[in-house]
Amino acid sequence: MSSATITQIRPVVALLTDFGTADGYVGVMKGVIAGIIPNVQLIDITHEVPPQRIATGAWILANSYRYFPAQTVFICVVDPGVGSSRGAIALHAGEWFFVGPDNGLFSAILAEETIHSVVELSNPAYHLPAVSSTFHGRDVFAPGAAHLAATGGAILTQLGPARDPSSLAQLSTMQVTRQGSRIAGQIVHVDAFGNLITNIPLHMVPELFSAAQAQITFPEQGVGVNKRRQFFAEGAEPAQPFIYGDSSQYIGIAVYNGNAARTLGVGYGTAFTYEEEL
Amino acid sequence: MSSATITQIRPVVALLTDFGTADGYVGVMKGVIAGIIPNVQLIDITHEVPPQRIATGAWILANSYRYFPAQTVFICVVDPGVGSSRGAIALHAGEWFFVGPDNGLFSAILAEETIHSVVELSNPAYHLPAVSSTFHGRDVFAPGAAHLAATGGAILTQLGPARDPSSLAQLSTMQVTRQGSRIAGQIVHVDAFGNLITNIPLHMVPELFSAAQAQITFPEQGVGVNKRRQFFAEGAEPAQPFIYGDSSQYIGIAVYNGNAARTLGVGYGTAFTYEEEL
Amino acid sequence: MSSATITQIRPVVALLTDFGTADGYVGVMKGVIAGIIPNVQLIDITHEVPPQRIATGAWILANSYRYFPAQTVFICVVDPGVGSSRGAIALHAGEWFFVGPDNGLFSAILAEETIHSVVELSNPAYHLPAVSSTFHGRDVFAPGAAHLAATGGAILTQLGPARDPSSLAQLSTMQVTRQGSRIAGQIVHVDAFGNLITNIPLHMVPELFSAAQAQITFPEQGVGVNKRRQFFAEGAEPAQPFIYGDSSQYIGIAVYNGNAARTLGVGYGTAFTYEEEL
Repeated sequence: MSSATITQIRPVVALLTDFGTADGYVGVMKGVIAGIIPNVQLIDITHEVPPQRIATGAWILANSYRYFPAQTVFICVVDPGVGSSRGAIALHAGEWFFVGPDNGLFSAILAEETIHSVVELSNPAYHLPAVSSTFHGRDVFAPGAAHLAATGGAILTQLGPARDPSSLAQLSTMQVTRQGSRIAGQIVHVDAFGNLITNIPLHMVPELFSAAQAQITFPEQGVGVNKRRQFFAEGAEPAQPFIYGDSSQYIGIAVYNGNAARTLGVGYGTAFTYEEEL
Repeated sequence: MSSATITQIRPVVALLTDFGTADGYVGVMKGVIAGIIPNVQLIDITHEVPPQRIATGAWILANSYRYFPAQTVFICVVDPGVGSSRGAIALHAGEWFFVGPDNGLFSAILAEETIHSVVELSNPAYHLPAVSSTFHGRDVFAPGAAHLAATGGAILTQLGPARDPSSLAQLSTMQVTRQGSRIAGQIVHVDAFGNLITNIPLHMVPELFSAAQAQITFPEQGVGVNKRRQFFAEGAEPAQPFIYGDSSQYIGIAVYNGNAARTLGVGYGTAFTYEEEL
Repeated sequence: MSSATITQIRPVVALLTDFGTADGYVGVMKGVIAGIIPNVQLIDITHEVPPQRIATGAWILANSYRYFPAQTVFICVVDPGVGSSRGAIALHAGEWFFVGPDNGLFSAILAEETIHSVVELSNPAYHLPAVSSTFHGRDVFAPGAAHLAATGGAILTQLGPARDPSSLAQLSTMQVTRQGSRIAGQIVHVDAFGNLITNIPLHMVPELFSAAQAQITFPEQGVGVNKRRQFFAEGAEPAQPFIYGDSSQYIGIAVYNGNAARTLGVGYGTAFTYEEEL
């Protein structure tokens, strides 16, 4: 059986929202999708993006999508502008499809993948019959994603008129700046273990583990970290924060069997400086 | 491929419980279901109904089931009476099947759909071999739902003796009363964003957005709301609660990029009055 | 259609981790699995094991796996030693397959099932191309589990060299000791309802409900429980803790429509004594 045939048999729709899982909103979206494409493979990425925090949704998507099969349709809804004139888009980028509001959620995809085409999801033939002003996840994005998955993306240009990729919203918060030997960064994610993920990619600091010293300083909190570990259990001193190479390929800070965010009093958005001594 | 054939290929079982997702209880129910019907499409509606709060489970189900494909089997377990003599039922109502305790969870379905048949789940041939007194979700409802899904509902009458639909438990808490120009209502749901959903259906207030004024007053809290918005981002004043038409087709109260429940000090069950001036 | 054929059509991969569901880690693992075996049936057991608490992961697995279909592949990741020299293993035990770190997570399986074979997951052909030092769930365990599921387990011996089952890590915390007429136990799980599950199996106390008296005493907290109930709603006095037979087949303590952990001030790991008077 060829790979293309397999993809047709169980197309993947992956979901990322800030809806939480308590209220049934995500279940309703999946019900709509399964009604259009019964053999869909539904995979949750997260529904716990902090309410309306687009940058966190964008960060999690950026670190997830490459691990999904080609032709996966990602439906991403962190959407404070729902019901307003903000765009609702579908992208074909790299080997994948992405559906959601045009508000910066897809910044990493726009920056890193070849954009094959983008459309505005304005064709009512691919919406639910009644579109609410507050739940486009159910009424617009779920049916659009389901029709894309059902056709292997062939339906894309029928979902609405083409959009110019250069007109799409992009976030700037992931920028990192180098000032001589120092790098000014910020914490872009705190995971469920309390690990702090920075916006400094590991390829920017090839000497991280070979330098004589490496130091991260949080000036506002008056705290710093200068230990380095290749993996969590190495050394394993309790309550001692250390710098490590996160699986997202960014610098992280962790505490073995502990919570670095709580230990350091640092959270999402906190600024820091990184310095190496070779 | 006909729609009937597709339904046979991936029958949907949708789950709604108050079990949480921490303890593995839901996973075990799904394991039982997949053992009976390997090609099932499992969809979670919610597992975060507040413990034992039947009315919230009933409300979420009422706002979800219509979006699922015909022949979906809903397995709903908010069940403070588990192990007692409360009934365990399966319903064929409208285009769907529902399985769970007879305690009011299915109130909206009984009120709004044609009831084709109801049975008591008392046939041990469709239970697990050993039925515990505390986990009927696993031992009674999961196998019953799985056999229903596997047969497109054909097995229904073999699951146990028929029940008279008029004998089934119904909740009364969703009633709303009109007193002259005023409507007395209550908050029936607080969602993960802190949006307050009332029990006043939008069809009861056709002038909501055209009236000169509309006002919701919470007498016990001494607070009120008189702004109206067609969608969340309209106006977008921070921390200002407003009235909107929720996607559930009930009146809601929200704060843009904020939490209306916290702002107003109002929660599940809070009473209010609604008044319009035309 | 024979049962063996059905198993090939929708092989089950069940997941148990301490990753939470907020960060997308579990979604990424599922993306990797679906890329290898598109027709997989993915079932979450839990992702809310308290961070790094192996004993809780082992307890939930012990009470779940028997309810899953034969040939289910369980991927279990509670892994404080990730990146260190702790082993990464796949087991064929009883009718199932288990994949995860060699740190005691599989204690109950090793104690209760026939071990057909165990291998070390060291063959890089069945890893992702780049293996991080902090996310073996994605890089080692997900691809290993997916290849096992795709082949009905036939690939097992190619995943790496055989391990001696007697060399595998086992937890000792589930031991219970009898001292004359008393049993010294501990709380091994607190579920989402606040029910306290003990480590005393029901088969060890056949007189639990027929004895003249049965008493559980928490000496450190200075509290005890001596009421017994066959099911939650029996008696139904509010705020009164009672002893019951949990669906896990261990002694439990609950409060009807309440939270026994909070009522008694007792939690995970609390020691107690059980005494009967016949």
